[in-house]
Amino acid sequence: MPKTFTDFFDVRTRQEVETILETSCPSMKGESLPLAEALYRVAAETILSPEALPPFSRSTVDGYAVHSDDTFAASEGFSALLTLAGKIPMGTVTEKSLNRGEVMAISTGGVLPEGADAVVMVEHTADRGENLIEIFRPLSPLENVVAAGEDVQKGDQILRKGQEIRPQEMGLLAALGITRVPVAAKPVVGIISTGNEIVSPETSPPPGQVRDVNRYTLNGLIQKAGGTPRFIGLIPDNETALKQACEDGLVQSDILLLSGGSSVGVRDLTLQVLQTFSGFSLLVHGVAVSPGKPTILAKVGDKLVFGLPGHPASAWVIAHLFVSRAIRACLGFSEGTFPVWDHATVSRNIPSAQGREDFIRARFTMKGTTRTVEPIFSKSGIISSLVAANALIRVPLNAEGVYKGEEVDILAI
Amino acid sequence: MPKTFTDFFDVRTRQEVETILETSCPSMKGESLPLAEALYRVAAETILSPEALPPFSRSTVDGYAVHSDDTFAASEGFSALLTLAGKIPMGTVTEKSLNRGEVMAISTGGVLPEGADAVVMVEHTADRGENLIEIFRPLSPLENVVAAGEDVQKGDQILRKGQEIRPQEMGLLAALGITRVPVAAKPVVGIISTGNEIVSPETSPPPGQVRDVNRYTLNGLIQKAGGTPRFIGLIPDNETALKQACEDGLVQSDILLLSGGSSVGVRDLTLQVLQTFSGFSLLVHGVAVSPGKPTILAKVGDKLVFGLPGHPASAWVIAHLFVSRAIRACLGFSEGTFPVWDHATVSRNIPSAQGREDFIRARFTMKGTTRTVEPIFSKSGIISSLVAANALIRVPLNAEGVYKGEEVDILAI
Repeated sequence: MPKTFTDFFDVRTRQEVETILETSCPSMKGESLPLAEALYRVAAETILSPEALPPFSRSTVDGYAVHSDDTFAASEGFSALLTLAGKIPMGTVTEKSLNRGEVMAISTGGVLPEGADAVVMVEHTADRGENLIEIFRPLSPLENVVAAGEDVQKGDQILRKGQEIRPQEMGLLAALGITRVPVAAKPVVGIISTGNEIVSPETSPPPGQVRDVNRYTLNGLIQKAGGTPRFIGLIPDNETALKQACEDGLVQSDILLLSGGSSVGVRDLTLQVLQTFSGFSLLVHGVAVSPGKPTILAKVGDKLVFGLPGHPASAWVIAHLFVSRAIRACLGFSEGTFPVWDHATVSRNIPSAQGREDFIRARFTMKGTTRTVEPIFSKSGIISSLVAANALIRVPLNAEGVYKGEEVDILAI
Repeated sequence: MPKTFTDFFDVRTRQEVETILETSCPSMKGESLPLAEALYRVAAETILSPEALPPFSRSTVDGYAVHSDDTFAASEGFSALLTLAGKIPMGTVTEKSLNRGEVMAISTGGVLPEGADAVVMVEHTADRGENLIEIFRPLSPLENVVAAGEDVQKGDQILRKGQEIRPQEMGLLAALGITRVPVAAKPVVGIISTGNEIVSPETSPPPGQVRDVNRYTLNGLIQKAGGTPRFIGLIPDNETALKQACEDGLVQSDILLLSGGSSVGVRDLTLQVLQTFSGFSLLVHGVAVSPGKPTILAKVGDKLVFGLPGHPASAWVIAHLFVSRAIRACLGFSEGTFPVWDHATVSRNIPSAQGREDFIRARFTMKGTTRTVEPIFSKSGIISSLVAANALIRVPLNAEGVYKGEEVDILAI
C-alpha cells in the first residue's frame, strides 16, 4: 500500500505551530539606542512621560491672542474692535498680561500671555490702524490654542513595551527630550544550508549541482522581520559536519535555521543530529501546510531551531509563516499578529486537498476598492514564480479548493 | 475684508505636485552592493540571466525516475511493475541511461538520468523486493520534474531597472550566481529645522521654547522611503544663518528639507533666502492639502528643496505625501505609486471644506474582510495624536466631508 501523509509526521496545523511559538521563543535583552537608529525597532520597556507637553499654552495659528469673551457674537457685520497691546516675540514669555479689551499679536507656536485664552486667526481680523484690530469671528475658550499639558501629561504612557517605533513615535519621544530609547536587541538568526548538491552562489556549479538559494531568501526575510541574519555555513549531508555546524550555529544564534535535510529520505539527518544535543526537545515534526510539510521545530536549551525544507519555495513559505513570527516573538512585539493578513477576491478556481492549508503564489492588484488576486500556477521548483508573486493565497485546511469570485485570505510577500 | 486662502499662495493640488515631482527629482547614481545588503533597494540596471536555470533536469520529489510511457494507465488495481536499475546520488550526474522498463531511485533535486522524463513520488510506489518497484499512478512527461531552462532561460530579464529587490529577488539572483547587484544610491535628504522657539531635543527648553520634533519624524520618514537622512542644523529666524545653512545643505544633500518658516508671517524667510541662490526656480508655493497648505517646492540647480510647515503634524503629512514620493522618484522606483493607497469604511462623519484635500489622522482596523477606519479628531498641535494614528483618511478636494459608512481612501502611516 502506498504510504500516506500521516505515516511520516505528527502533523500540526499552522495555528498549533503559532501557539507553540508564542511560548517557545527566547526573549531578547534590551539595548539603548540613539533615537534616529531606533526606527521600526520594538520598545523593550514602557516609557512614561517625564514632563508635560506642551510646557506652556501655545498658539496653533498666526493671529492675535484675545480674551475669548471679548469676541462674543463678533461677525462680519458686527465686528469686535480691540486694542493692540503689543507683539509676542517667538521663543519668549511675555511678562505683560493681557487686559480685557486688548489683543496681542502672536505667531504659530507663540506663548499665550497671562489672561488670554484664545487666538484669532489673522485671516479673521483687519488692522484698522492706530492700534485698533477688528475681529470678525467669535472665539471659544482654547480655540487655536494647545493648553499646557493638553498633549501629554507628566506620567502618561508614551511608549509601551512591545510597541514598534515609527516616525511619529520618534517625534513624540523627541518632543519630550527622550533621545535614547530602550529597544529589544535584534535576534541573531543563523542559517545553515545543507545538501551534497548545493554550492555557494559565488561559484559555478559542477554538473548535477545547483547554487544555494535559501541562504539569500532567508537572509532577506530575517532582515524584513527585524532579525540579524548570520550565515553559518554550507554543509554536505554528513552527520559529523552537520553536528559541528549546529554547535557553531547554536552558540552564535538565538534562532537557528537549517534548510534542506528535513524531508524523510536518505538525507534526513537534521533530527538525528539535533537529538544528540542536551536540552533538545522536539516541538513540531511536520506541518499541515503546503508547500512546507516536512518542517521541524525544536528547542535546544533556550535556542529555537527550525528544520526547513530544502525547496526554495517551501523554505520561503515556512519562513514567512513561522520564522518571521518567531523573530517578532523574540522581540516582544505586542501589536497584533505578524505577518498581517489581508484579503482579496480570487480570479480563478484553485483546486486543493483537504487536510492541509495551501499557500499559492499569486499576484494581488487593487483598483479603487476592488481587490483581486490571481493565482500563479507553477511547479514547486520554479524560483522565478516567487519573483512574479506579491502575495500568497491561503486555501483553508478543510477546503477542497476555492472558487473564482470567492474572498480569500492573502499575505503580502 | 478678511484675507482668503488664495490671497497667500498660488495653490496646487496634490496631483499637480505629484506630476511636478515626476520630472523634478534628481536621478541617483548606481552603486554595486553585495546581495545581502541590497534588500529593498531599487535596481539601477536591468539584468538579464547569464545562464539557464536549472542547468539540468531535476526531480522535485523523492521517488523514482521513470519513462512516463511505462506508467501508462497504472492504478492501485492495475499497477506497473518496473525494475530498479540503481540509485542517483545527490549532486552528481549518472552516466547510466534509463532503459524502458526500468526506474532509478532519485531524491528531490537529483539529476534525471538520460532517458527518464518523469519522477513518481515514493508515496505512489511500493518496493516489492528483488529490485521490483510497483507504481500505482500514471505519469505525464515532465511530471515532478523541472526541465533544464524551464525556470529561466539564458537572456531572460530577471531584474528590471527600477524594480525593488525583495527576499525572493535575492533568491533568484543567488540561483544565477549574481551576488553583487547594481542599485540606485540612496538620496541624501538634508534637514534644516528653523525657528527662534525651537531647541535641540537633547536640551531642556527654556520658558517659551519647545524641542525640535520634525528633525526626528522627518528622519524616520526619510529612512522609511529609502533615503539617508542628514541633519544640517537648527537655525534661528535669521536670514544670514538660514542662507549659510541652505548653502551647506545644498552641498550635502540631494533633497533639502526646511521645516518651519514656510508660513506667511514674520518668519517667512525660506523663500526670501532660496531666491538668492543662482539656479533657483519656484515649482510650488502652497498646496490644496490640509494640513500642510503653506508648503514650498523649489529647485536650486538639480537639487530639490521643500519648505515644510513647522507644525509637526503638517510637516509629517506633507512628508508622507510628497517627500517620500520624491525619494522614490530619485531612486527610479518604477513599480506603481508610492505611498500606496488603500481603502476602508469610515466609522463617523467627517466635515471638511471644499477646495482642499483633507488628511485626517485615523485608526484603521480589519476584522475578516471588514475594513474600518475611525477618524481621530484632534487639534493640529497635538503630537500624541500622530502616535495614536496608523492611517490618514483622504477627504477629496471638492467634498464637503464624508459620511459615516462611506468608502474612503487611506494611507497606512
